[in-house]
Amino acid sequence: MAFDHRKYIPFRPVAKTDRRWPDQVIEKAPRWCAVDLRDGNQALVKPMTVAQKQRLFDLLVKVGFKEIEIGFPAASQPDFDFCRKLIEENRIPDDVQIQVLTQARPELIERTYKALEGARKAIVHVYNSTSTVQREQVFGMDREGVKEIAVNGARVVKAIAEKYPDTQWTFQYSPESFTGTELDYAAEVIDAVNDVWRPDQGQPVVINLPATVEMATPNVFADQIEWINDRLRYREHIAISVHTHNDRGCAVAAAELAVMAGADRVEGTLMGNGERTGNMDLVTMAMNLYSQGVDPTLDLSGMAEITDVVEACTEISTHPRHPYAGELVFTAFSGSHQDAIRKCLARRNDDDLWNVAYLPIDPRDLGRRYEEVVRINSQSGKGGVAYVLERDYNISLPRWLQIEFSKVVQREAEINGGEIDSLTIHRLFESRYLRVDKAWELRSYDLHRDDNGVKATVSIGPESSPTTISGHGLGAVEAVSAALEKLFDVSIAVEAYDEFALSEGTSANALACIRVTANGQHCSAAALAEDTTSATLQALFSAVSQVVEIEPSVA
Amino acid sequence: MAFDHRKYIPFRPVAKTDRRWPDQVIEKAPRWCAVDLRDGNQALVKPMTVAQKQRLFDLLVKVGFKEIEIGFPAASQPDFDFCRKLIEENRIPDDVQIQVLTQARPELIERTYKALEGARKAIVHVYNSTSTVQREQVFGMDREGVKEIAVNGARVVKAIAEKYPDTQWTFQYSPESFTGTELDYAAEVIDAVNDVWRPDQGQPVVINLPATVEMATPNVFADQIEWINDRLRYREHIAISVHTHNDRGCAVAAAELAVMAGADRVEGTLMGNGERTGNMDLVTMAMNLYSQGVDPTLDLSGMAEITDVVEACTEISTHPRHPYAGELVFTAFSGSHQDAIRKCLARRNDDDLWNVAYLPIDPRDLGRRYEEVVRINSQSGKGGVAYVLERDYNISLPRWLQIEFSKVVQREAEINGGEIDSLTIHRLFESRYLRVDKAWELRSYDLHRDDNGVKATVSIGPESSPTTISGHGLGAVEAVSAALEKLFDVSIAVEAYDEFALSEGTSANALACIRVTANGQHCSAAALAEDTTSATLQALFSAVSQVVEIEPSVA
Repeated sequence: MAFDHRKYIPFRPVAKTDRRWPDQVIEKAPRWCAVDLRDGNQALVKPMTVAQKQRLFDLLVKVGFKEIEIGFPAASQPDFDFCRKLIEENRIPDDVQIQVLTQARPELIERTYKALEGARKAIVHVYNSTSTVQREQVFGMDREGVKEIAVNGARVVKAIAEKYPDTQWTFQYSPESFTGTELDYAAEVIDAVNDVWRPDQGQPVVINLPATVEMATPNVFADQIEWINDRLRYREHIAISVHTHNDRGCAVAAAELAVMAGADRVEGTLMGNGERTGNMDLVTMAMNLYSQGVDPTLDLSGMAEITDVVEACTEISTHPRHPYAGELVFTAFSGSHQDAIRKCLARRNDDDLWNVAYLPIDPRDLGRRYEEVVRINSQSGKGGVAYVLERDYNISLPRWLQIEFSKVVQREAEINGGEIDSLTIHRLFESRYLRVDKAWELRSYDLHRDDNGVKATVSIGPESSPTTISGHGLGAVEAVSAALEKLFDVSIAVEAYDEFALSEGTSANALACIRVTANGQHCSAAALAEDTTSATLQALFSAVSQVVEIEPSVA
Repeated sequence: MAFDHRKYIPFRPVAKTDRRWPDQVIEKAPRWCAVDLRDGNQALVKPMTVAQKQRLFDLLVKVGFKEIEIGFPAASQPDFDFCRKLIEENRIPDDVQIQVLTQARPELIERTYKALEGARKAIVHVYNSTSTVQREQVFGMDREGVKEIAVNGARVVKAIAEKYPDTQWTFQYSPESFTGTELDYAAEVIDAVNDVWRPDQGQPVVINLPATVEMATPNVFADQIEWINDRLRYREHIAISVHTHNDRGCAVAAAELAVMAGADRVEGTLMGNGERTGNMDLVTMAMNLYSQGVDPTLDLSGMAEITDVVEACTEISTHPRHPYAGELVFTAFSGSHQDAIRKCLARRNDDDLWNVAYLPIDPRDLGRRYEEVVRINSQSGKGGVAYVLERDYNISLPRWLQIEFSKVVQREAEINGGEIDSLTIHRLFESRYLRVDKAWELRSYDLHRDDNGVKATVSIGPESSPTTISGHGLGAVEAVSAALEKLFDVSIAVEAYDEFALSEGTSANALACIRVTANGQHCSAAALAEDTTSATLQALFSAVSQVVEIEPSVA
C-alpha cells in the first residue's frame, strides 16, 4: 500500500473576518468536567473494575472537580451499577455533580434516568452524531432527519426529568463529531434543542462541542468555537463546553484557544487517557494556567498520587516526558542548562516570584524536589557535577576544579554510557582528589611567622616513622613548597588554591583544593581537615605525591 | 510547600494589529531538521552508544531527512568521535547535510570545525542565550555584552570556515531561549550576526528561533515568529527555523502555527524525544500534513520500524496513545465508533479519497492493519462484534443476531473484565448458536413442492437410530415447524431467519440464523451446512432443541 498523501482531503477552514480570540489571554480557569470514567474508561483494553472506578472518582473529587462524567449507564451494566453505587452509598459530595452520557434514543434515555434516581443533582448528557460523514455514510439520513433525532432526544430528556422533581437536573447536548459538522447546521441543531429545553426559562444547559476527531490545526477549532459562540441563540443562558481529542497531538492547544474564543467549560481526563490518541489532558491545561499565575481551581500538588492512581486504574504508564508529571520533565542533563538552573536557584529567595531558566514551574509545587532537577550523564558539564556534590555532600568546588573534575565525570559517563549517580560522583571525587597516601599524610605542623615571612615545620608520613621537613615562604603553602622542592629536587608552582569552611555536621570542617605544577606537570588535589591550614597542606602533599614518586620517609 | 499560583508571572503576549497567520493554511512541508542525535541524545538518562547513534542516523536518512544535527562535538568526545566516523567512513549521503551545535566561544568553534573536517557540506550551528533571565541571572551581562558574544561567535565561525574551502558551509544562529527574549532585542542580535555573515552575498544562513522553554499558548509563539519575520533584515536571503519544546504540551501546535506565521524550517525529533518534556515531534507534524493531503517529504510508512529504532536508541517506550504511532491510536473499543468505522469501511472503494469516521488516516498507510482498528471489550457494541466475526471468520450476522449476540459478548467481557479476542468471540458464537445436539442433527431431507405448498420429510438424530418427521407448509421452514409442533405438542413461531452463502474456502457453504418462539420462549440458533436449506433446517432444530427437552428418537 503506497504512502500517498493524495488520498486525503484538506480540512476547509472557517472564513473569518471578525476573529478576536488571538488577542485574548486566559485569566480565569474554565469550568472543568472530568470524563475519565466515561470516555477514558471506554478506551481501555481492560475497562476499570468497580474498585478502580471508585478510586479514580475519589481522586477526582479530592483534586477538586465539581463535574464528573461517570459513565454511559444505558449502554453498560457496570456503568449502571457504578452509578447506583455512588448514589445509594451516598458517595457524591454535595458540591459535585455527576454526569452520564446517553444516546438520543428514548429507551436509552429512560434507562439513564433510572440509573440517576435519587441523585441530588446530575447532568444528563445526550448526544447524536451530526457530521457529514456520519449522516451520509453511517446513518443514511439528511440534515432534517439527524436534527429530528436531537430534538426528539431533547424532548424525552425534558419529559422524563419532570418525573424526578427532587433532582436538580442540568441538560447537556453534544453534536458529536462537531468538528466534522457544517457550522451553520451545528448551530441550527443546537438552537432546535434549546428551543425544547428553554435555558432562558431557568433550565441549566451545557452545549458541549466535541472535536471527536481532531481534524485541523488548533486555530481552526478556535475559529469554529468563536463562530458558533457569536451565533447561538440563548447564548447568555447556556454554558459552552469543549471536548477535544488528540489525533494531531494538539488537544491541549485546541482547548486553550477555544477558551480564548469563548468556551466556558472544558472536558478532559487526567493524563489525557481516552479514545485512540486520548482526550485533552486536564493536568497539562490546568498546570499551564497555574504557571501563568492563574488559579486553576484544582489542587494538583499531589502529582505523584495522581499519576499513581491513574496508572493503577488505566494500566497505562505515564510517559517520562509527560508535561508536569513525567519522571524526566524536571531534569536537566545538559551542562549549560544545569549551570543556569544552579545559578538561578542560588540567587532565589523563597518568596521571590518564580523566574528560573529552563524550569517553567517550581518542581516543589508538585511534590517534586530540586534534587531531581539535575542528573548527570556524559552530556552534563561542570554546573551539574558541582551542583550534585554541593547538594548531597556539601562540597563546594572552585570553578577551576569544577571544570577539571567535570571532565573526569564525563569520561566516566562516556565509558559506562549511562547516568552517573551522586554516590559515584562522590567516589570519583574521593579517589581522584581526596585520597591520601600514607607516606604523605600530614601529622602536624608548626608555623612561625615573623617579618621574614613564614617558617613552616611539618611532619608527614606514617605515625611510626614520620618525616619532618621545613622551609620558608610568604605563606604556609609557599614555605612547605620550598621545603619539598629542596627535599625532592623538584620545582613546584602553585597555580590555584581555595579553602572552604564547611558547615557543621561533618568531622572535617574545611575543604581545600589545590592545583600545582610540579616539574612541569599539572596536578590537583583536595583535602578535608579540621582546619583550613591542615586541609591546604594535605592537599598540597597529595598533589605533589602524584609527581614525586619517592616516599618521603625513604628520601 | 503551598500550591500557589500567585508566585508565577503571566507571560506578556505580543501586541499585534497586523496578524495574518490565522488565515493561513500549510500547503507545503517546511524544511525539516532532525535533532535526535543532539537535543534528543543530550536528554537521555543513558546517552546513545556509537552503534545506537549510527542506527538512528541511518533511520533518519532512510525516512528522508536532508538536515540532521548529529551532536555537540566541542563539548562531548563521543559526539566528536561520531562526527569523525560519519565523515571518515563516508556514511553521509550526498544530499544530506550534517549539522553540529556549538556555543559562541572561539575555542569551541575551532574544535567544531576540526570535527567537521572533510565533510562535503555541513551546518555550523552557533548559539548563545539571549533571554532576560539568562542575561540577568546566569551571565550577569547587559544587552550589548550578550550581543557581542553572538557577533564574536559569528566572526569566528566565518573566519574559520574560510580555512576549509572544500566544504559547503551553512551557518546557523540560534538566540537560545528566544521565547524569553524581548523581540526587538532578538531582532537586533540576529541582524548583527547577519551583518557579519552577509547572507545577501551568497552565504547560506539559517536563523533558528527556539522555544527552549514553552512559555505561553502556541498563538503567542506564532505572533512572535510573525513579528520577527516581518522585521529581520536580509529576510529574503535567510531561512527562518523554529525549534519548539513541549513544556505546555503544545510543541506541535506551536511549530504548526509558526509555519503559518512564516517559518521555513522546523527542527524536532522522532517521537518528540528531547530535554524535559521533549522536542517537537516530527512524526506527528509530518503526519498532520499528510492527513491534509500535503506531501510531508518524509516517508513514514514504516512506522513500526521507526518506533522500534527510536525505542532501541532512546530506551524510552512509545506511549500507547502517541499520535499516529501508539498501539491504541487506531483502535476503537466504543460500540458506536466501531459501528461507524465498519459502515464507512464497507462502503469504501480502494481508490476513494479517505473519509472514514473516527479514523483521520488509513492505518494501512503506516503499515498498520484494519484488524487492529476494532477491538472488543465490555464497551463494545454489535458493530464491533459483527466486524470481528466477519473479518476473521467470514461470518456475517443479521442485525437482529448482532444485537442479541453482542449482549452475550458484552456479558462475557464484563465478567472477565478485559478485552475479548477474536477467537473467544468465535467460540462464544459457536457454543451459543452453532452447537448441534446429536439427537437434533439433520441427516437428510426431502422437499416436495406442489400447489398445496411444500411437503417436507426430514430425518434427524443419530445415524444409528434416526427419526423421520414430515409436515406441510408454505415453505420448508414452515413445513418442518408444523411437523415439530405435531410431534412434540409445541407451538412454534418463526420470528426471523436469514441465510448467507459463504464464500469459498470452507467446507460449509451456507450459514443460516433463525429466531423462533417455541411455547412462548425466544430461542435463536445458527448453523453451517453445505447448502442453505440444510443450514436453515439445522438452525431451526437447534433453536427448538433449546425448548423441547425430549429427544426425538425417544418421542
